[in-house]
Amino acid sequence: MSQAHSLVQDCPLCQSAGGQLVFEHSKFRVIWADEPLYPGFLRLVWQSHVREFSDLSDEDQLLCMRVVVLLERFVLQEMKADKVNLATLGNVVAHLHWHVIPRFTDDAHFPAPVWANAKPDAALSFRQKSLLNRMQQLQQILAEMLFEYCPD
Amino acid sequence: MSQAHSLVQDCPLCQSAGGQLVFEHSKFRVIWADEPLYPGFLRLVWQSHVREFSDLSDEDQLLCMRVVVLLERFVLQEMKADKVNLATLGNVVAHLHWHVIPRFTDDAHFPAPVWANAKPDAALSFRQKSLLNRMQQLQQILAEMLFEYCPD
Repeated sequence: MSQAHSLVQDCPLCQSAGGQLVFEHSKFRVIWADEPLYPGFLRLVWQSHVREFSDLSDEDQLLCMRVVVLLERFVLQEMKADKVNLATLGNVVAHLHWHVIPRFTDDAHFPAPVWANAKPDAALSFRQKSLLNRMQQLQQILAEMLFEYCPD
Repeated sequence: MSQAHSLVQDCPLCQSAGGQLVFEHSKFRVIWADEPLYPGFLRLVWQSHVREFSDLSDEDQLLCMRVVVLLERFVLQEMKADKVNLATLGNVVAHLHWHVIPRFTDDAHFPAPVWANAKPDAALSFRQKSLLNRMQQLQQILAEMLFEYCPD
């Protein structure tokens, strides 16, 4: 990552990508998170160390939101998720990142949030396993969509 | 609520406000949620029965986001929260609503999400009790801010 960003020494999202890098823009990156029960779990990470969404300029809020919407549509259309969950929490790592989570009615927590207790028999569903098998292809399609949407 | 909206018979957010109504706009409403461990927990509820954020038009996404940002700033500046959590899940009630949650380092879950297990000694912190005491005043200030921002 370019040193033009405002980075913080002890912040994990300033010091590493935070997952498999799918697309990098000067202002944000999109990663495929390492969440064993949630293949296809995407994160938009702001490049600069910003705490709250409202700390972004109006222009950057708009860019960030438009990309989150693009990710949501990708999760619905390409991953065929039953529902999308969006969240920005940052209680542990207070560096702006958005969770874009593909939810399936037969996933490990549904209909509970992914932060609740998993079901006792929690495992990958058939459709989630298929996402895992298509991981490389999905990442490629997403990278192309993002490049087309915001070439930087 | 006006019958001009697209409403659904068995949807709780089509059939009732969903909490204490703070402000009503033709396109959305803001409620003070009934969350005993989280006084000041706000929700923006879209008036029409829309499933996903990305189902909104570009213009409505922007309006929705701008109001969520206003709520976030209110939570930081007027409630003096340590962190704000934003989320739209909708797994149980698939009618678009945004959670805007004031988090305090000594609240019932911090730093975990509010959907995780509460701490064993979970109770309202001093600052949360003070929010509860200022509830009417806070709702009044917020209603005025929202009216000024988007008079409809």
